Amino acid sequence: MTIGIVGGGQLGRMLALAGYPLGLDFLFLDRSPDAPAGQVAPLLAADFADRARLRELAARSDVVTFDWENVPVESLRGLGCPVRPSRAALAAAQDRVSEKRLFERLAIPTTRWRNVESRRDLERAMREVGLPAVLKTRRLGYDGKGQARLDTARDAEAAWERLGAAPLLYEELVPFDFEVSIVGARAADGSIVFYPLCLNTHAGGILRVTRAPHGSTRLQRLAERHLRRVLEHFRYVGVLTIEFFVRDGRLIANEMAPRVHNSGHWTIEGAVTSQFENHVRAVAGLPLGETRPLGYAAMINLIGRMPPRARVLAHPGVHLHDYGKEPRPGRKLGHCTIVAASARARDAWVRRLLPELAPDIRIP
Amino acid sequence: MTIGIVGGGQLGRMLALAGYPLGLDFLFLDRSPDAPAGQVAPLLAADFADRARLRELAARSDVVTFDWENVPVESLRGLGCPVRPSRAALAAAQDRVSEKRLFERLAIPTTRWRNVESRRDLERAMREVGLPAVLKTRRLGYDGKGQARLDTARDAEAAWERLGAAPLLYEELVPFDFEVSIVGARAADGSIVFYPLCLNTHAGGILRVTRAPHGSTRLQRLAERHLRRVLEHFRYVGVLTIEFFVRDGRLIANEMAPRVHNSGHWTIEGAVTSQFENHVRAVAGLPLGETRPLGYAAMINLIGRMPPRARVLAHPGVHLHDYGKEPRPGRKLGHCTIVAASARARDAWVRRLLPELAPDIRIP
Repeated sequence: MTIGIVGGGQLGRMLALAGYPLGLDFLFLDRSPDAPAGQVAPLLAADFADRARLRELAARSDVVTFDWENVPVESLRGLGCPVRPSRAALAAAQDRVSEKRLFERLAIPTTRWRNVESRRDLERAMREVGLPAVLKTRRLGYDGKGQARLDTARDAEAAWERLGAAPLLYEELVPFDFEVSIVGARAADGSIVFYPLCLNTHAGGILRVTRAPHGSTRLQRLAERHLRRVLEHFRYVGVLTIEFFVRDGRLIANEMAPRVHNSGHWTIEGAVTSQFENHVRAVAGLPLGETRPLGYAAMINLIGRMPPRARVLAHPGVHLHDYGKEPRPGRKLGHCTIVAASARARDAWVRRLLPELAPDIRIP
Repeated sequence: MTIGIVGGGQLGRMLALAGYPLGLDFLFLDRSPDAPAGQVAPLLAADFADRARLRELAARSDVVTFDWENVPVESLRGLGCPVRPSRAALAAAQDRVSEKRLFERLAIPTTRWRNVESRRDLERAMREVGLPAVLKTRRLGYDGKGQARLDTARDAEAAWERLGAAPLLYEELVPFDFEVSIVGARAADGSIVFYPLCLNTHAGGILRVTRAPHGSTRLQRLAERHLRRVLEHFRYVGVLTIEFFVRDGRLIANEMAPRVHNSGHWTIEGAVTSQFENHVRAVAGLPLGETRPLGYAAMINLIGRMPPRARVLAHPGVHLHDYGKEPRPGRKLGHCTIVAASARARDAWVRRLLPELAPDIRIP
């Protein structure tokens, strides 16, 4: 059985590495022939809108999935091959306004927001939602790109200058106690599994450190209830992630990702079945695997430059994941994972590793 | 950095899957273009004696290793590229007489044996070593192939008829309490790590079930002492395995394998760092990883036919490894691994799985 994957980044690469032991084959389509997945599986180098290559991918695959939420929905139409998760779920996640409306429709608490299509819309949004706030492009934003922060009304002009050419979302800036995410999967037969809540530390809009499990049973159940609603709404097949702000013990949905997620990378060593294996199982129509954590895990992203391999591996118990990418400032090049026997031991271990792996980051 | 691997079987395939996360690339050489490793990495299809292709492999690699102990030693000579482990270690493991002499030289207790090059040698060996015994070809034996058992003097003629064309080893059949193996690795800088002892269940000369950790601290230390001697004797770089019979608390070396070993497959999920990652780390000149077990693991080989994938994966906590091989009677097609919280829970779990995964096998 061959799984076709549109997008061949590190997520696709880790999907293939998780799926090979199950006896599955992979075929990727990516704009770059040097994409990380192309180093571990065959890859068709083509634009995401190249119908001929997309049809070739589908013809050579039993099911098609994607590793990037900005794959054009149109590209996945009429391939003559099942696409999992569905285009409807992908479409909702691609547009911040659709995403907010979905959260509201499913009674998942989210930030206050306004659709902004004109300078006048922006003024009204500022009045109605207030400040501070964030102006975001509705589409194609990730890792903090396509966003401008507004602290006072004077920031509106510059934000509009920079982003106003595209449809926008104006969103209150929620003061939060911490950020979490929940990763879960739904199988083709409707069964659902959840991973424990992940505590995320961001800097400059980029995820830097994730620790899991985190939070109370109450918070876990709440997050599961929200994620379940989205999974069932779309009859979703695959892994889905929702990021939340936590404030005074309440969850406020920030955004969702219709795919495996950076905050779930710790599951490779830290859970019985990784998020990557569970996504592959789901899209291949196989039963989902156990998500039980194997201890207290932490994941540290390696951004911009890779530390020397031999130095990282000299640390006992540190697992390295090098995505095989060319270094570039701000680029996610790899990650490290540790699994400890207690949350306290894990946090102390992370603090010892950060000066070497992410010197600009401190964890609370 | 590219690691060239001569032999592209399931061991090579699992070496590549363990090495990709470290950012390493792989290139294989195997007689069959459909070899399991060729499904996850580039592969040169050529005979193991094809000098031109071997030189191409070496030219495109930074270091060369092998996944099969019967690669001709001559094939690895003069490649202009480091070969790890060394040809000397490979040569010793390829010839049962060299192997026995090595064990004796290093004061590692082994079975009583005689070199057999003629019918007269065989008669003398029977007199001096006694019966029951096993007559084995000195070279190219694996998984019970090239062996004949002698219970009485009347079995000698048939055994000689079948095997006498090749140089042979006559070896006492040791009555044993159980069989164990130890897997360890030596890095280029001389540092050494050991995995816990593995308890092995064979049938028809083929490994069927491994459970680890097993045995007392005393037995573990004894096995480590023996393995260390071999590793240091060869200034070995990579993973090495010794199989022992255990009788009355004593270890009797059966044979060694200069490579990752079927009895070490459980380390993928059952230890902090797998035998595959540690072999790759060693040959790449990187520091070795922690070998601590993560619980009580069992590995069940899937022989001859694969059970339906969806049924295997429906068992919570069962990890599947499908090597992507065509089914054939007696062929190792894959394995399953479980990790439990106690030896007792693990054994009970194995007993529940065996009727489905290996119906002809019972574990003691």
